[in-house]
Amino acid sequence: MSARVVAVDWGTSRLRIWLLDQDGSVLAERRSDEGMLAARPDGFGRILEGHLDALGAPVDLPAIICGMAGSRQGWVEAPYVAVPASMQGIFAGAAPIPGSRRDIRILPGVAQRDPASPDVMRGEETQLAGIASLLGSDSHIVCMPGTHSKWVEIADGSIAGFATYMTGELFSVLAGHSILSHSLGAESHAVSATDPLFRRWCQDSLSDPGDVSARLFRIRASTLLLDLKPGQAAAALSGLLIGAEVASASRRFAKSGAPVVLVASGALRPLYEAAFGLAGLEFHPVEADEAVRAGLFAAARHLGMGEPAGATA
Amino acid sequence: MSARVVAVDWGTSRLRIWLLDQDGSVLAERRSDEGMLAARPDGFGRILEGHLDALGAPVDLPAIICGMAGSRQGWVEAPYVAVPASMQGIFAGAAPIPGSRRDIRILPGVAQRDPASPDVMRGEETQLAGIASLLGSDSHIVCMPGTHSKWVEIADGSIAGFATYMTGELFSVLAGHSILSHSLGAESHAVSATDPLFRRWCQDSLSDPGDVSARLFRIRASTLLLDLKPGQAAAALSGLLIGAEVASASRRFAKSGAPVVLVASGALRPLYEAAFGLAGLEFHPVEADEAVRAGLFAAARHLGMGEPAGATA
Repeated sequence: MSARVVAVDWGTSRLRIWLLDQDGSVLAERRSDEGMLAARPDGFGRILEGHLDALGAPVDLPAIICGMAGSRQGWVEAPYVAVPASMQGIFAGAAPIPGSRRDIRILPGVAQRDPASPDVMRGEETQLAGIASLLGSDSHIVCMPGTHSKWVEIADGSIAGFATYMTGELFSVLAGHSILSHSLGAESHAVSATDPLFRRWCQDSLSDPGDVSARLFRIRASTLLLDLKPGQAAAALSGLLIGAEVASASRRFAKSGAPVVLVASGALRPLYEAAFGLAGLEFHPVEADEAVRAGLFAAARHLGMGEPAGATA
Repeated sequence: MSARVVAVDWGTSRLRIWLLDQDGSVLAERRSDEGMLAARPDGFGRILEGHLDALGAPVDLPAIICGMAGSRQGWVEAPYVAVPASMQGIFAGAAPIPGSRRDIRILPGVAQRDPASPDVMRGEETQLAGIASLLGSDSHIVCMPGTHSKWVEIADGSIAGFATYMTGELFSVLAGHSILSHSLGAESHAVSATDPLFRRWCQDSLSDPGDVSARLFRIRASTLLLDLKPGQAAAALSGLLIGAEVASASRRFAKSGAPVVLVASGALRPLYEAAFGLAGLEFHPVEADEAVRAGLFAAARHLGMGEPAGATA
C-alpha cells in the first residue's frame, strides 16, 4: 500500500477516515456514526484501530485527527490555540496520543478570547487550513454553514477573527421543541433552494435582520390562518434563519465585496448559495470534505508525518 | 352572596377563577394547574363546576371565560375575530356552551389575516379590553410579555395590529434543548433586573438587534473560556432575548414616543421595566391579573350577564 497517512475527521456524531497517498489523494475511505459521543471515554483507540484493520492499513501508518476528539470530552485534549492563529501555530498545537504505538496526533481548536465576542471552533480550523492549501490564498472571508455556522476572517494566512451563528441548531430546536413543531410536523422535510417560500422568507430576513424572533411566530400563525403545509413551514423557517445569518455576517465580514469562500456540502450548499445570490454576494464554493482532507494532509506534511524514507525535510 | 359573575382565565397550563361583585371587585379566587391541556377534551364543565361548588357559588351564576378554552382544542371553539377588532366586536363573538344550565360564554381570540404578517392571539384580547376599561383610553401601544409576547396597537378602541415575539419560548427551548443547556444547567435561575450581566446583554441587543443569533453562541463560548456561571448565563440569555424584542417592537410600534402600556406580572415585570429603561422608553405599568379581570368584567357587563333584577339595560 502506498498510503502515507491516515486522515480522520472525528466529529460529535460522525467519524470519517481516509487513507491518503503521498500527494494527499484518497486511497480508501470509511464512515461511521461512531462520533465522539459514541466513542468516549475510552473507545477511541479501539474504534480507530478497528477501522484501520478493516482497511488493511499498516500498523505504523501515522494518523492525523481533527474535530471533537480533541476536546475536553474527547480522546486527548488538544487545547485551543488563540486568535490570531496561524496555520503553522495550529499544526504545532497538535496533541499526541501518549502510549500509542502508532503516531497519532489530534489538531487543536481555536479560541477567540475577546471578552466582547468570545468564540470557539474545533474542526473548522482544519478546513480553513485546507482552503489555504487549495486556494493558495492568504486572505479571505470564509462561510462554513452547519449546526453552528462559522464566518471567519483569514488575513495573511492567520485566523484573524470569527463568529458563530447557531443557525442549524436553532432550526432543530425550534422544529423539534417549540410551538413550531406543530407547523413542521414530525417528519423531516428536505428544503429546496428553488422553493418560493424559502426564497421569500430568506429575502425578508436579508432585508430586515432585526426582526427574526418576530417572524418566527408568523410560521405558526400561517399554519393556523393560511393553511401552511409542513414542508412549506420547513422552507419558511430555513429561509428565515439562513437569511438572518447571511444578513448579519455579511454586514460584519464581507464588507470589502471580495467573493466569500463558501465551504458547504450536502443539502446546505444549494440553500446557502441561494441566500448568497439573493443577497447579491459573490462566493467561491469549496466542497467541505475536500477542505478537511486538504487541511489534514497539510498538517501531516507540516509535521513530517509519513515522510517517505530518505526524503529531505 | 353578592357575586355577579364568575370570571375565568383558562390558559394552556393554568386555570384562574374569580367571583366578582356588582362593581367587578374580587370576592373569591381559585387557581389550579388544570389548564386546557389537562381539561380537554371533556373535563372543562366538571372542573369548572367543581371549583364553583367549592366556592359556594349559586348554580345560576353566569360565567365569562377567556383564553385557550375557546381554541379549537378547547371546550368550545370561539372563532377568531379579525383585525381591526373593536372591543364590542370581541364581546359579541363570545361563544356559549350549549346545553349548560349555567350561562357560560367563552370570548374569542383575534386574528390578523395579513399575509405579510399573519398573527393570532387568544386571551390577550381580554386583557386589552381590561386596559381600555382601566385607563379610559382609546388609543395606546401595549406590550404584553410572556411565552409569546404580544405588542399591540390600539387605535380608537380597536385592535389595529399586533405582533408576536416568541421571547419566553425561545428562552425555554434554548435553555432546555440546545447547547446552551450546558451553560444554564438543569436548575432554573431567577434573573434579577439589577444583574449587570442582564443589563449589559440587554443593552447590546437594544443597540444591535440584527445580531441575536450571533450572540447566542457567545454564551456557550463564555462558559468555556470565561468561566460564566449558570446563573450568569441565564441572565445573559434573558437580557439578549428581551433586548432584541424591545428593540424590534419599539421600532415598529412605539415610534410616537407616547408611553407604552406594559402589562406584566411576576418575574417578567422588573425585567421588562429594566429593558424599557435601558431603551429610554416611557411606560405605564398595569398588573396583568388586574387587566384580565377588568376585561372579563367589561365583557360580562356588555353582554348583560349577571344583571341585577330590575336593572335597566
